[in-house]
Amino acid sequence: MSALPVSYVAAADARSRLAGLATPPGALGLLGETAVWLSAAQGVCPPRPVPNVHVAVFAGDHGVAAYGVTPFPSAVTGLMVRAFVDGTAGVAVLARQHGAGLRVVDVSVDADLDGVPAEISASKVMRGSGAIHLVDAMSHEQTDAALALGAQVADEAIDAGADLLIGGDMGIGNTTPAAALIGASLGVSSEQVTGRGTGVDDEGLRVKQRVVANALRRAGMRVKDPHDRLTALGGADFAAHAGYLMQAARRGVPVLLDGVISVACALIAEEIQPGSVAWFAAGHRSPEPAQSLALDRLGLSPLLDLGMRLGEGSGAVAAVPLVRSAVTLLTEVALLSDVLEP
Amino acid sequence: MSALPVSYVAAADARSRLAGLATPPGALGLLGETAVWLSAAQGVCPPRPVPNVHVAVFAGDHGVAAYGVTPFPSAVTGLMVRAFVDGTAGVAVLARQHGAGLRVVDVSVDADLDGVPAEISASKVMRGSGAIHLVDAMSHEQTDAALALGAQVADEAIDAGADLLIGGDMGIGNTTPAAALIGASLGVSSEQVTGRGTGVDDEGLRVKQRVVANALRRAGMRVKDPHDRLTALGGADFAAHAGYLMQAARRGVPVLLDGVISVACALIAEEIQPGSVAWFAAGHRSPEPAQSLALDRLGLSPLLDLGMRLGEGSGAVAAVPLVRSAVTLLTEVALLSDVLEP
Repeated sequence: MSALPVSYVAAADARSRLAGLATPPGALGLLGETAVWLSAAQGVCPPRPVPNVHVAVFAGDHGVAAYGVTPFPSAVTGLMVRAFVDGTAGVAVLARQHGAGLRVVDVSVDADLDGVPAEISASKVMRGSGAIHLVDAMSHEQTDAALALGAQVADEAIDAGADLLIGGDMGIGNTTPAAALIGASLGVSSEQVTGRGTGVDDEGLRVKQRVVANALRRAGMRVKDPHDRLTALGGADFAAHAGYLMQAARRGVPVLLDGVISVACALIAEEIQPGSVAWFAAGHRSPEPAQSLALDRLGLSPLLDLGMRLGEGSGAVAAVPLVRSAVTLLTEVALLSDVLEP
Repeated sequence: MSALPVSYVAAADARSRLAGLATPPGALGLLGETAVWLSAAQGVCPPRPVPNVHVAVFAGDHGVAAYGVTPFPSAVTGLMVRAFVDGTAGVAVLARQHGAGLRVVDVSVDADLDGVPAEISASKVMRGSGAIHLVDAMSHEQTDAALALGAQVADEAIDAGADLLIGGDMGIGNTTPAAALIGASLGVSSEQVTGRGTGVDDEGLRVKQRVVANALRRAGMRVKDPHDRLTALGGADFAAHAGYLMQAARRGVPVLLDGVISVACALIAEEIQPGSVAWFAAGHRSPEPAQSLALDRLGLSPLLDLGMRLGEGSGAVAAVPLVRSAVTLLTEVALLSDVLEP
């Protein structure tokens, strides 16, 4: 399967309308570019409003969490799934503010989640992905199952009327496989891609860099193939997230990317399914160095740069009003021709 | 008169609550800092919501517009005032999206505004401020009248229940006096402060730099005094804007600053009335180099950096949802103590 093409006709119409607004040329900056992108995705100019934003948070644990790459124990992942359900996690608060739907999917949490709705874990792929510096994150079959799960999550959201998708992440230790995936995707070193995640100290950062370097060395040339890369260096939650992004591009629904996990998955999605990136815009820049490298490769400029490093999809959800502003500006601002000859 | 003090007790409470959230330390980035600022301004933690945002756009013409510093004729200022009234200007569209009140004030438009409500021009100070490279922008009496007008606009908004103020600008040529004011306030050269405004070409930029340099030379040592600086290099619209900002700080109502005009006025406000800056946060970074220099001097980090250069207050209004997100996050995200011992 392949990504749908976006509409270059609608994009050209949008660029023309943007140039015809009663504003100085380029004065709307990235909001103007975002309006053009959304027109291309929707195939219509001006773009339609996006009232139905859907956020899917893919939760999973990672074996590396036990090896000094994070100050938090894996048990926190399960606690946070409850906070999503309770509506007290950061992304849940922001989703409520902006009227976005929120779903959390237990892809590979290393716990039995008691006290949360059973459907959250109904399609669970595994209990914790492997410690990638020692073993593959999962089997090929698990990668396929997780990709399919993510596609199904996208389908259910789109069938329910979602007009903008956001993928979020929850998983202690997950910035380590994200760094490894981006390092392998871009062919850059562990020093360049490894960041402090939720806040490791200098010693923790050095440990994390070694874990990423060892994971890249262990995986070797297998990482040339994006499916093998996910299997060796990612995790079931990453595969589900990538499957979600790819299905959005197949179904023709735009996506607002979040932080380092989201863009790591977007790189994979674009490689497995070229053309997917035309459906993606960048919600925010995270402090993780790998995220900026990946955004550059994808050719995307983030709407926000607030130093947020909460994960969960929170940066993208915080940026939703800006996507809506892009729509309202291209739709409602006067045309120069109307101002001069009313 | 002087700025009210903000509450350092509430700020400390907010910082403590922020540190106690079930998020990694610092993970909310600038949104967390914004919540602390708003707590300090409101004197309460967590901060109250800010449903009643008020935007006042101070419109005025500038003599320099006739000297090659802008591609647009001054007549556009009056046309744009109509677009504010019609609701088709960029800031009007954004204000509607975010439920903000919008008022446009004709401080010094160089035209009789037909076809707009008479109250818009009821307190007009003058018809066009002087070309600052040749003459003072206005008289001391006009500066005083404009400062008082801005304070009155703030009072009316606050008396009507506004809980967050934004000042906007409309005036062809106004980035030139803004650059001159910031250059004089910071003691830096015309080359460092002069930008392309709404989009002058290389030749236009050189002309604009010369106009700013000549204005700074003409004003000489008088610019040491902030009131004299406004009189010599600003304009009646700038003085009204500065008066609005100062009155907000006297009344104890927080302000979200906009682009280069807004921060030029904030520098003046802080100098005339020290402590005012505690009431200000920065809505966005504009591409004007002077704006970044002024934000650095004020110690403010902008919420948005979208390459917007529309003026009107539009960048700050686009950032309003982020201020609201700061409130909801600090209020509604679970405390770590609740997650660990529910």
